Amino acid sequence: MFKQVTIMGPGLLGASLVLAVKKKLLAEKIVVWARSENTAKNALEKLPVDQVERNPSVSVRGSQLVVLCTPVETITSILNSIIDDLDESCIVTDVGSVKSEICKNAQNLFKKSKSSFIGSHPMAGSEKAGMDHANENLFSSRTCIITPDDKADSEQLKKLTLFWEYLGMKSILMNPQEHDAKLSQLSHLPHLVSSVLAHSLHDKIDEAPMLCGQGLRDTVRIAGGSPELWAGIIEQNKINILESVEKFEESFQTVRNLISQNDFNGLQEFLKQGSVFQENLNK
Amino acid sequence: MFKQVTIMGPGLLGASLVLAVKKKLLAEKIVVWARSENTAKNALEKLPVDQVERNPSVSVRGSQLVVLCTPVETITSILNSIIDDLDESCIVTDVGSVKSEICKNAQNLFKKSKSSFIGSHPMAGSEKAGMDHANENLFSSRTCIITPDDKADSEQLKKLTLFWEYLGMKSILMNPQEHDAKLSQLSHLPHLVSSVLAHSLHDKIDEAPMLCGQGLRDTVRIAGGSPELWAGIIEQNKINILESVEKFEESFQTVRNLISQNDFNGLQEFLKQGSVFQENLNK
Repeated sequence: MFKQVTIMGPGLLGASLVLAVKKKLLAEKIVVWARSENTAKNALEKLPVDQVERNPSVSVRGSQLVVLCTPVETITSILNSIIDDLDESCIVTDVGSVKSEICKNAQNLFKKSKSSFIGSHPMAGSEKAGMDHANENLFSSRTCIITPDDKADSEQLKKLTLFWEYLGMKSILMNPQEHDAKLSQLSHLPHLVSSVLAHSLHDKIDEAPMLCGQGLRDTVRIAGGSPELWAGIIEQNKINILESVEKFEESFQTVRNLISQNDFNGLQEFLKQGSVFQENLNK
Repeated sequence: MFKQVTIMGPGLLGASLVLAVKKKLLAEKIVVWARSENTAKNALEKLPVDQVERNPSVSVRGSQLVVLCTPVETITSILNSIIDDLDESCIVTDVGSVKSEICKNAQNLFKKSKSSFIGSHPMAGSEKAGMDHANENLFSSRTCIITPDDKADSEQLKKLTLFWEYLGMKSILMNPQEHDAKLSQLSHLPHLVSSVLAHSLHDKIDEAPMLCGQGLRDTVRIAGGSPELWAGIIEQNKINILESVEKFEESFQTVRNLISQNDFNGLQEFLKQGSVFQENLNK
């Protein structure tokens, strides 16, 4: 599909992408960019890559697709550092969980460029970070939200969409603002709630492993995600997240009142609504 | 181990217990009590039982172990209905997720009986209820909390402990009040939080299946549990749960302030505490 693909940042997502691109034969040559010497060395040893570079400019030269797999707060500065070295027909995308700020900055930056930036959010991941947990099937059957702006070239958009679909993903198009509003509810809020729950149980840390059931384990699983990554995501989607938080707090207030007022029929109705939502997720 | 065991209420836990007792050869004869004609018929057809009864008194006669696997709010009245028909050496236990009220009522009721009641809470379950989801390995490697009162017979307690251990469980002894306080934090609060999250996302019910990742799915999994069962559990452990809710709300308030005051280093520290808790759970 591509002669050369550059994957920047071989963490869990980047390294999994290398494996998946290799497996699906989507590039003749895979170049990886890694910031640190150590990561670059590991990538060369452990991943099926053709070239590893520590200089961003060098890493993107000659590629038709560049995928930034670094934390959201680093995307804009990396785009700045590569823009002058991109091939004319190059498609640049990222895998960040927040899109408005990245896409707005990229739109400005790419105004005068012949290459294009189109944001992506492949909804795949794990609470286990890093190259060592890379998995060639990480993207399979997951959803990828693609967030083109109004001026996105339709051929380039089609090519990027097919790229994610060839990796086994279901693609959805959405504008960056809509993405951030919806994801604040469906992804960022759950993460925060999971973290708050884990945080509030901190005094039970020693006995929890023995006394808890699978329920607690599942509910706090995503709280194990990288604090650095998630602080960055929450910072970039602050306004939407605070709105989602407010809705959650209203629901929480409702259930607390039902319990303290001994309205256990009302509580049952409340729980029922939650269970309907849960069942619908897995239909 | 036992000549005859009676399992009352062949729902997910009761039916799984039938399968596990059969597999581990812990009883020569298994009797099941089911309230409804339909459930009794299903139990006879689908489970490896020797006898199915709809009359509680008849079902317990001749058994050395009786396990009540019905919702927590029904336990006391069922105990009342069987107390006069129990064999002298019979051990009666239950599988309820709240213990103080059940054990207090049982203590009064069994004062003049030669048989004994000792509460159990095998921490196994699933958001999928009912006999059809029964699984002979449901108890394997899970924890069972046993909640004897001060007057419990040590031989009977030992026998009950071994019963759960033979099913593959790790046993812990605890008094009923301690059980309810700890479980309000480690089990009932997570359930409530999961339900509130699902409830607060109800307006996203149509798009959630396509737009959510594994994070939301895991976080709301237990919200799929039976509203009737959980309203009963929360009612019986109301005071402890309201305390746990308060602690959760304090943590939530903290994180909301960090976000709205743009303290993203503080946020990272907060998330870090949650991730340490999560990692420790799976050590």
